[in-house]
Amino acid sequence: MSIEEVAARAGVGKATIYRRWPSRGVLALDAFLAEFQQQQPLPDTGTLRGDLLGALTAWVRAVTQSSAGRMLAGLIAEAQRDPALAVAWRDRVVEPLRAQHTIMLERAIERGELSGTVDKEVLLDLLFGAAYHRLLHGHQPLSDRFVHQVVDLIVAGSAMKTPAR
Amino acid sequence: MSIEEVAARAGVGKATIYRRWPSRGVLALDAFLAEFQQQQPLPDTGTLRGDLLGALTAWVRAVTQSSAGRMLAGLIAEAQRDPALAVAWRDRVVEPLRAQHTIMLERAIERGELSGTVDKEVLLDLLFGAAYHRLLHGHQPLSDRFVHQVVDLIVAGSAMKTPAR
Repeated sequence: MSIEEVAARAGVGKATIYRRWPSRGVLALDAFLAEFQQQQPLPDTGTLRGDLLGALTAWVRAVTQSSAGRMLAGLIAEAQRDPALAVAWRDRVVEPLRAQHTIMLERAIERGELSGTVDKEVLLDLLFGAAYHRLLHGHQPLSDRFVHQVVDLIVAGSAMKTPAR
Repeated sequence: MSIEEVAARAGVGKATIYRRWPSRGVLALDAFLAEFQQQQPLPDTGTLRGDLLGALTAWVRAVTQSSAGRMLAGLIAEAQRDPALAVAWRDRVVEPLRAQHTIMLERAIERGELSGTVDKEVLLDLLFGAAYHRLLHGHQPLSDRFVHQVVDLIVAGSAMKTPAR
């Protein structure tokens, strides 16, 4: 759908549409987000492992069992050459989801499962980076087994060691 | 550069070019690979940590300090809508680099640093997935600190525990 068609259907001028959505990619992004964000819960299972499993399972389910996977891949592709979309992508997708997922990590720090000095950005890059990698390259399936192995390795690699006495 | 121009410069028919390179994306891929693969060494430092640091540092250096980063991002973007490029991408980029990096992991298994049952695909998805994530989303820098934190977490999460006695 072109910007012209959107403007015509909404009964407003093209300028109005461009002010809100500077490119067709950004318009597509907002349409995508309305559904995708509802599919991304904030788990609160009481353990770091349970929360990471819940968050990654929800993400994998959304991208493999709905049209979200193709849309997500298409938006990331388009963001590589549409600077307005790249900014909107970070502001409206990456950062809000990060803020939500960071709450899981802060709870784990409060429970003493993670050190307060852990780099939360790196931990989330590992968790979701591995999953985006399979989505975009298609070299291996986004299976339940994959989700569990990713989470188990991250938990084993980041969990607080029992203090030496 | 169009397929027509490439054919004209090479002094061959378009059909010859299309047989070798079914799309412009695949042609761009081969041009990219000639340089990129030389920038990806097979480290052999004697430790898993040293080898993972060497491989990820080389990748990050190539994508941040040369045109490889923009080309890599552009090719992944194009592969999302060019099926021939998606297949060529897996066959000529993902799989050969995987095969090379798997050698590092097999050496670590031989040295007893990694269990023989470790899922090598998942370990490499974590290592490179986190890095591709920062390249494609641009939300955080591909810094040395990032490389070290990613490698340290993966090593801590996958290394063989000292057997209980």
